[in-house]
Amino acid sequence: MRAYEIIHAKRDGRVLPADAIAALVDGFTHGEVPDYQMAAFCMAVFFRGMDDAEVRALTEAMLRSGDVLDLSDVPGAKVDKHSTGGVGDKVSLALAPLAAACGVKVPMISGRGLGHTGGTLDKLEAIPGFRVDLPVERFRAQVRDVGACLIGQTARLAPADRKLYALRDVTATVESIPLIAASIMSKKLAEGIDALVLDVKVGSGAFMKRPEDARALARTLAAIGRGMGKRVTALLTGMDQPLGRAVGNALEVAEVLELLRGGGPADLRAITVELTAEMLLAGGVAPELAAARAAVEQAIGDGRGLAKLEEIVAAQGGDPAAIRDPSRLPRAAGTYPVPSPAAGFVQAVDTEAVGLAAVALGAGRARVDDPVDPAVGILVERKLGDRVERGEPLCVVHHGPRSEPRERIAARLAGAYRIGPAAPPAAPLFLERLT
Amino acid sequence: MRAYEIIHAKRDGRVLPADAIAALVDGFTHGEVPDYQMAAFCMAVFFRGMDDAEVRALTEAMLRSGDVLDLSDVPGAKVDKHSTGGVGDKVSLALAPLAAACGVKVPMISGRGLGHTGGTLDKLEAIPGFRVDLPVERFRAQVRDVGACLIGQTARLAPADRKLYALRDVTATVESIPLIAASIMSKKLAEGIDALVLDVKVGSGAFMKRPEDARALARTLAAIGRGMGKRVTALLTGMDQPLGRAVGNALEVAEVLELLRGGGPADLRAITVELTAEMLLAGGVAPELAAARAAVEQAIGDGRGLAKLEEIVAAQGGDPAAIRDPSRLPRAAGTYPVPSPAAGFVQAVDTEAVGLAAVALGAGRARVDDPVDPAVGILVERKLGDRVERGEPLCVVHHGPRSEPRERIAARLAGAYRIGPAAPPAAPLFLERLT
Repeated sequence: MRAYEIIHAKRDGRVLPADAIAALVDGFTHGEVPDYQMAAFCMAVFFRGMDDAEVRALTEAMLRSGDVLDLSDVPGAKVDKHSTGGVGDKVSLALAPLAAACGVKVPMISGRGLGHTGGTLDKLEAIPGFRVDLPVERFRAQVRDVGACLIGQTARLAPADRKLYALRDVTATVESIPLIAASIMSKKLAEGIDALVLDVKVGSGAFMKRPEDARALARTLAAIGRGMGKRVTALLTGMDQPLGRAVGNALEVAEVLELLRGGGPADLRAITVELTAEMLLAGGVAPELAAARAAVEQAIGDGRGLAKLEEIVAAQGGDPAAIRDPSRLPRAAGTYPVPSPAAGFVQAVDTEAVGLAAVALGAGRARVDDPVDPAVGILVERKLGDRVERGEPLCVVHHGPRSEPRERIAARLAGAYRIGPAAPPAAPLFLERLT
Repeated sequence: MRAYEIIHAKRDGRVLPADAIAALVDGFTHGEVPDYQMAAFCMAVFFRGMDDAEVRALTEAMLRSGDVLDLSDVPGAKVDKHSTGGVGDKVSLALAPLAAACGVKVPMISGRGLGHTGGTLDKLEAIPGFRVDLPVERFRAQVRDVGACLIGQTARLAPADRKLYALRDVTATVESIPLIAASIMSKKLAEGIDALVLDVKVGSGAFMKRPEDARALARTLAAIGRGMGKRVTALLTGMDQPLGRAVGNALEVAEVLELLRGGGPADLRAITVELTAEMLLAGGVAPELAAARAAVEQAIGDGRGLAKLEEIVAAQGGDPAAIRDPSRLPRAAGTYPVPSPAAGFVQAVDTEAVGLAAVALGAGRARVDDPVDPAVGILVERKLGDRVERGEPLCVVHHGPRSEPRERIAARLAGAYRIGPAAPPAAPLFLERLT
């Protein structure tokens, strides 16, 4: 089938054979299928969807467009975690050392923040000296010797995905479950993993605002992974408010350090323990979930998680002293509180708006090549259901030289909170587990 | 709205403001909106459609992308006819001189054949010497002095449409009623007409196979024209078999000459008279349809239609002797019959297959720059409902040096006919009139 016929068939709702999808992706990667045909195809997929076999074929074609790591010579189970993205989601920074401390190998290739969500690479780079651009051989050696390595996507990893994502980004075809799923899985499966734990976020701060969409994405992701022989567990978790208290790179690193010292916000700790425990289970180093959770709690309690993070930081060129002494992390020029305009209970948080306020402070990027200020961000003072008096702070802003003016940021943040006379029903953190 | 936002809004089913559509078309025409964004937009329109105001805005934007003829200094009503395309549809060649002979001015800008349908320009060029590339000033003068002129689209006429059509053609976004309608009307409204008669074809040889689609297209076309102050009449006519007997350029010209001499196939004559009469009515030169039909019949009977065609041919550089003596038209190298494989009645004709067989003979083009052989084509010997004995000819092929081999052509044509034991119900030629 030629590109025209493939677009036409998808447009009319037909199921595409795997070889047609492979030829399309190949042609696109090598510049034989022009962008305009691929854009029309993506829009047709947006409307018509893809079945499991089609998404798997798309994923395989994107995966095969670049290098696939072979970590079979690294002993132990290689397990990664992927989150679909939220606000204040710094779980990977604690989970990777904790899982490694418990005996799982974690080859983690992460992304940068774009839009309202943060990115693991930006958070890691808030640690002075930390390098995310290691060559593949150092990545492999560190996974083997340290147990975890966290780097960015190399140019040779799934280049078709990078090219396709850039096109989708400018043609309003990002929000398509088959295209999202193939994009995620083509990168994750290139890491040479045996198993994958997925954290699919749902709510006002997630890409998927509705549980049914998140569930559909989780099912599609899991089907791709299983179809390619990987063990996949997916959790649907709530993203109706920032995770933990910190939003912004150095603030989030500091919160991770608190967590690894046995403190930190309850929701962050719960989700970190649960996702790490799923990795232990998936990697076969714990017999069942309760034992896995206990093992993770112990690695927090006895400081092995913190020590492992320090080891990772040292191995990747970062300042290990910053792990012991968070005051060495970048600090913002100043802070100011955002007072509540009314007394009452926090009934809802427009979490995407909080994420975008952090971007406006300089913590994230509106465009791919925007610089990021590691020091700026937001510390949440009131979570869903909390009581607040008029004039008490909803959150505290850490601002910097490139931050938008205080009035604008404060108005955005105050506007993101809905304060009402009664506490809302408790928002569940764990919505569903698909295995 | 930026291009991205326009695509996004249409994708989500929102109605676009006129200025957004104008900006998109403008940007696309001037190369500021890239092809990939326009392709995604077209696919979104394919799925979401457009309301009347949106299609009108799209048409106006494409119209304004180039020159719009002003024929207000040409006295009389300027009326054109447009057909959505069929097989053996040579109506324009008889209708333009007949309407001009009856006092209507006919500024007709036509297209070439592409796909299974023929094009008026290719048919005209079967007349030795006939030129379709006249400059605008000669076009204007001939409409004024002769009463009709038939030319091809100039580069300065609706360039946005030409660019957009080329993109739609390779991105499987041709079959969208709003896009089809805007494409047709942006060209027709650039002609400087007062009124337009539309022949919207339905059936196995038409782009619209189903009456409901043809009706929707007719309504959209009429709404655009009326919204821009033009009088528009639309007829839905049957295209479940080739119109008349001839398919192929010189063969069709010869059939038109027969018609203008008072002969010719009944269906061709009926539709030519009806559409020409609608032009007379729309142009205000006849008080009602019956009188308009009588005027057209008279212009056939007294030879004024034929004389006007001769005048047009002479004015456009063609050989007027070929109009009096059809043996001067190009003749095919040879002919062969396609025998019926069975005895019975013609129950159905796959008219698109007949059109594609004519293309395979060389009468049409599979690609825009394919050459056309004016002499080759097909003469239909049996129409729907006709009785045929086994071995009697269903049609006669006029072949040429570039034609595909006889066995292949004959098999395609025989396969296009369904022969059965009973005559089918009569297929109506006129399905509906929208005014």
